[in-house]
Amino acid sequence: MGKKDKSSKKNKRNPGTSMTLGIDLGGTKILAGVVDEHGHILGTAKRKTRPERGVDAVIERIASTAFDAVEDAGLSMDLIDAVGIGAPGVADYNTGVIEFAPNLANWVNVPLGPRLQNLLGTPIYVENDVNAGTFGAATAGVAKGFRSVVGIFPGTGIGGGLVLDGQLWRGARNAAAEFGHMVVLIDGPLCGCGRRGCIEALASRSAIERDIAGELRGGRQSLATEYTDSEGRITSGALAELLDKKDALVTEVVGRAARHLGIFTAALVNAIDPECVVYGGGLIEACGSFMMPIIRGATYRYLIRPVEPENLPIFEAMLGDNVVLVGAAMLANASLKTP
Amino acid sequence: MGKKDKSSKKNKRNPGTSMTLGIDLGGTKILAGVVDEHGHILGTAKRKTRPERGVDAVIERIASTAFDAVEDAGLSMDLIDAVGIGAPGVADYNTGVIEFAPNLANWVNVPLGPRLQNLLGTPIYVENDVNAGTFGAATAGVAKGFRSVVGIFPGTGIGGGLVLDGQLWRGARNAAAEFGHMVVLIDGPLCGCGRRGCIEALASRSAIERDIAGELRGGRQSLATEYTDSEGRITSGALAELLDKKDALVTEVVGRAARHLGIFTAALVNAIDPECVVYGGGLIEACGSFMMPIIRGATYRYLIRPVEPENLPIFEAMLGDNVVLVGAAMLANASLKTP
Repeated sequence: MGKKDKSSKKNKRNPGTSMTLGIDLGGTKILAGVVDEHGHILGTAKRKTRPERGVDAVIERIASTAFDAVEDAGLSMDLIDAVGIGAPGVADYNTGVIEFAPNLANWVNVPLGPRLQNLLGTPIYVENDVNAGTFGAATAGVAKGFRSVVGIFPGTGIGGGLVLDGQLWRGARNAAAEFGHMVVLIDGPLCGCGRRGCIEALASRSAIERDIAGELRGGRQSLATEYTDSEGRITSGALAELLDKKDALVTEVVGRAARHLGIFTAALVNAIDPECVVYGGGLIEACGSFMMPIIRGATYRYLIRPVEPENLPIFEAMLGDNVVLVGAAMLANASLKTP
Repeated sequence: MGKKDKSSKKNKRNPGTSMTLGIDLGGTKILAGVVDEHGHILGTAKRKTRPERGVDAVIERIASTAFDAVEDAGLSMDLIDAVGIGAPGVADYNTGVIEFAPNLANWVNVPLGPRLQNLLGTPIYVENDVNAGTFGAATAGVAKGFRSVVGIFPGTGIGGGLVLDGQLWRGARNAAAEFGHMVVLIDGPLCGCGRRGCIEALASRSAIERDIAGELRGGRQSLATEYTDSEGRITSGALAELLDKKDALVTEVVGRAARHLGIFTAALVNAIDPECVVYGGGLIEACGSFMMPIIRGATYRYLIRPVEPENLPIFEAMLGDNVVLVGAAMLANASLKTP
């Protein structure tokens, strides 16, 4: 797609407005949505990802989902100015290459951007999904209007995103906001990354799972035995049910994880001093009503410069906010404006 | 000073150039220097601070030192466009008020900026000393030319400064870069701030002093007994001597502190992904040749995205760099350009 094609497109539409497509590429599903420049969704579509079918099949499924979303909005692809994709793993924003994505059946160096550009005929912007989600929250979600936002997304791991002065902060090597691997307990539990004491090794769903399994192996009684599979795995939804049933072990382990997240959040705020913090991710979506008050309490206690909570809100991104999809679309929109 | 006065000053000088005065206000000494817009020092002066004589006396001493520096440069005060001050403690950049400075005999809410403006007849910009030092390193010191810089200054405490996109990042509430109170060992040693496990409680000179005193009380043999005063205090210079003598206890304790600083540095880099890191402060100035290799080693090992050291240099600010003085002057210069 040359610049000429793009400008001819724009001529069909109101000058100064732009319409982008956002895609949330997850390990299990693909969500696509047409988004206007205010962050409103005009049409959506959804498909299973099926990463086990290989790279080519997934890229074709992304393209089909994109066309479906455009149709759902009553539009055609040539009215779309750009496409933004929030993808799991390490994405190189400049080249559109997914360097590494364990959740997509271990994609390595997949040129997702260039290949989709061939299929859709539109500029493609590829971004890490948590970066996109934080930008979505800051431009059209719970943190709309806030200029500097720390985004923390605990799930199987812990993802992070950082918006400073209204823009996504990617850092010097496109490696910023790797909050999950900040050490908060030197020489603490082993992390999936091979180091010790990362917040991800203390407060992700995987860490909670490990701690519960350890206690059960030690003979502790808990309803959790009924919710864990043969490999000791337990979903965020199951944790939420067990919290509702006031299971003592689960309450203790998840409560401790939440306290650790709060102390870690304070460390980040002490360093960056953002206008607000946004929490999201699978663990928070399931267990937020129990965890968020503990996270907030520990955060405010561990700030070196005390603030009134209203001056540093700690938001919970809502389920159904489509923050990744909207954020990816808004990033594509912003990229059009700053070439 | 009205705007009229300032513009009349400027008419005497080359248009487009500016000359500022930087002041490093410490607990023991005041350094002042005239600095051109490239960060070169044209003249300096120095006085003891003598904070025990009270606020009025200190402010007069600052003014005298400023006039001396201008004279040393062969200039007069009406050729100085603005004055920047790097002050210890919490400084409100917008009002010029020092909110709290334990090292200045506990100054509380001292309107340093407005009062000096009356004495010097020049716009005054007051900034935290470590912020000024980091900006000095980034604009005219070891990190000159780097656009995003994390500054870490271990001494009695641990100060921090953050430059992003070439500008000092002060955060939403003027509270950014409080790196010393990021928790790296949850529920670890008690910190001076009343919380536990802050990096300052693990790797400052005070923490090293505490750990050495504890071991000595426990009966461990060390040359450190000859270097500690009756209250168990030990200077950074004494630590350096003991390291030179290969004292086992001091080597162990300072080495551990350095490793902790490295793990903490990696946490900061994982979050912010700066172009470089600058270390300075009394502990590093004295013990840097021993500590910096350990700090660098631990930092690179704990980065979640490995980089070649040349792509993320970890600099040691040199003694005699006058980074706070130059940084304060450069901040005043930058403030003139962005009113």
